[in-house]
Amino acid sequence: MSVLLEFSMTPIGKGESVSKYVSRSLEIIDRSGLEYKLNPMGTVIEGEWDEVFEVVKKCFRRMQKDCGRISISIKADYRKGKGGRITAKVASIEKKLKKELKK
Amino acid sequence: MSVLLEFSMTPIGKGESVSKYVSRSLEIIDRSGLEYKLNPMGTVIEGEWDEVFEVVKKCFRRMQKDCGRISISIKADYRKGKGGRITAKVASIEKKLKKELKK
Amino acid sequence: MSVLLEFSMTPIGKGESVSKYVSRSLEIIDRSGLEYKLNPMGTVIEGEWDEVFEVVKKCFRRMQKDCGRISISIKADYRKGKGGRITAKVASIEKKLKKELKK
Amino acid sequence: MSVLLEFSMTPIGKGESVSKYVSRSLEIIDRSGLEYKLNPMGTVIEGEWDEVFEVVKKCFRRMQKDCGRISISIKADYRKGKGGRITAKVASIEKKLKKELKK
Repeated sequence: MSVLLEFSMTPIGKGESVSKYVSRSLEIIDRSGLEYKLNPMGTVIEGEWDEVFEVVKKCFRRMQKDCGRISISIKADYRKGKGGRITAKVASIEKKLKKELKK
Repeated sequence: MSVLLEFSMTPIGKGESVSKYVSRSLEIIDRSGLEYKLNPMGTVIEGEWDEVFEVVKKCFRRMQKDCGRISISIKADYRKGKGGRITAKVASIEKKLKKELKK
Repeated sequence: MSVLLEFSMTPIGKGESVSKYVSRSLEIIDRSGLEYKLNPMGTVIEGEWDEVFEVVKKCFRRMQKDCGRISISIKADYRKGKGGRITAKVASIEKKLKKELKK
Repeated sequence: MSVLLEFSMTPIGKGESVSKYVSRSLEIIDRSGLEYKLNPMGTVIEGEWDEVFEVVKKCFRRMQKDCGRISISIKADYRKGKGGRITAKVASIEKKLKKELKK
């Protein structure tokens, strides 16, 4: 539970609208059993290193089946011994500002 | 309203906990008047090119005051003539999957 | 000279081969007068905040002319009072390892 | 040889100068046997999916030994059946522009 990973995976050359392909990734993420949060620019998942990268790989293998070029962006934040950060990080900012922010 | 921009801005060399610095950025974003959504790995804002980059610059100028090294990650998605994507992109995925996802 | 910025800018929906569009960006970068280094995944430029973001914006304005959707990835590293890092960072790693690395 | 992956890995909370930690990653990359190119903002490696992510993981395991927080940025570009892109992509841009660019 020590890694927060955000990623987005986009086929290049499949037209401007790619939600058909992104939907399949979300199906895989939703079934993975890991905690996740979808946002307009990517999906954040939380788990151990191998767990989160396994989910990314599964999404890639699925997209690879019918996409000849794929662009992937990943940002990870490891913090030793800290779990639950998928909710705690935002809560910590709100606490500091003493107000609720848009999520 | 044609640019969705996600960014995170982190001081390097200010210890492992940086929420004090991140809070100030959120204060600036919240006051900017632009639509935004905070997630555990960054903040997504929506606006025209100059508007969204102005917000990023304001956050930088504030952080620069007391941070000697700053790491910034930005991902932008431009789509001609499309506004409201800060909510529409996620809705489009949910519609395709015919279920609600975690956000 | 205190900001190192790496970026890539890719049209979505213009096919798998996008070098025609990327070439135009490099033309703009090459003429900008800023120090730059092209690599297989992006271009690193060095300058002050406003200078480097002006170059990114020029590339965007050019690409926007005939691309309906554009994906942009930017990573910036600010360090107070440090110029010449476009060559110094790599040199520092090589010095530590006492060997030449592939560039 | 179908994946180009650029990554950077930075300890948070180890001061402003992190070249000591980055050097260790380069040692691992240099010994991996994969083609790579170091630039001022990250390192590009080329290989199959499992190969390139194995290198990233090795760098992480090493850094994890003495760093409590680590920030990782990864960008990957998959293209079916295309190897040698670690040199071919830049060459293709130069060919289009009919001039040599700074690398």
